[in-house]
Amino acid sequence: MIVDNLKAPYYAVIFSTLLTDNLDGYEATANRMEVLAAQQPGYLGVESARNQLGITVSYWESLAAIVAWKNNVAHTEARDKGRAVWYKKYQLRICKVEREYGFENL
Amino acid sequence: MIVDNLKAPYYAVIFSTLLTDNLDGYEATANRMEVLAAQQPGYLGVESARNQLGITVSYWESLAAIVAWKNNVAHTEARDKGRAVWYKKYQLRICKVEREYGFENL
Repeated sequence: MIVDNLKAPYYAVIFSTLLTDNLDGYEATANRMEVLAAQQPGYLGVESARNQLGITVSYWESLAAIVAWKNNVAHTEARDKGRAVWYKKYQLRICKVEREYGFENL
Repeated sequence: MIVDNLKAPYYAVIFSTLLTDNLDGYEATANRMEVLAAQQPGYLGVESARNQLGITVSYWESLAAIVAWKNNVAHTEARDKGRAVWYKKYQLRICKVEREYGFENL
């Protein structure tokens, strides 16, 4: 789903990932984290796509909201498991969204 | 490919898209734009993934570089064609990358 109801400035976390071949439990945990993230204060939405490369962009009201989610215990455990087992490589970028433009072909 | 050789601050353009069913010429144009973008001053890299939703994130040295690429004639023509034919909906966000973290399981 495209997130199209926000008003800059706000924050985006761009999480780009390559997975290993051992994905036992990955999908269940990813889904659980998506549900849990959506319950956090300051969460605004998420967009996600994957071919070989996966890109998940989550949107947040503030840097403080991103830090609080980073420090969430269940999220920390999932991230540790991710680094140990599921992720071959990732890059995580914290960005301030300054402007945006939308288009819809109705 | 994950872009992992950059040093914040720099800029990211997050382009989230839903396509129509008429994709005649889309892939050729998308590939041409990717090659052309990479030749622009201030271009730093691109990451791309698609399921139903597509997410392409391009990275740039400055807002000026993003504006110059926006105003590129071939890019403008491709964007007009995209709005007329290929895109059902899109959202384009211009962001300042403030921090980043990488991980690689070697």
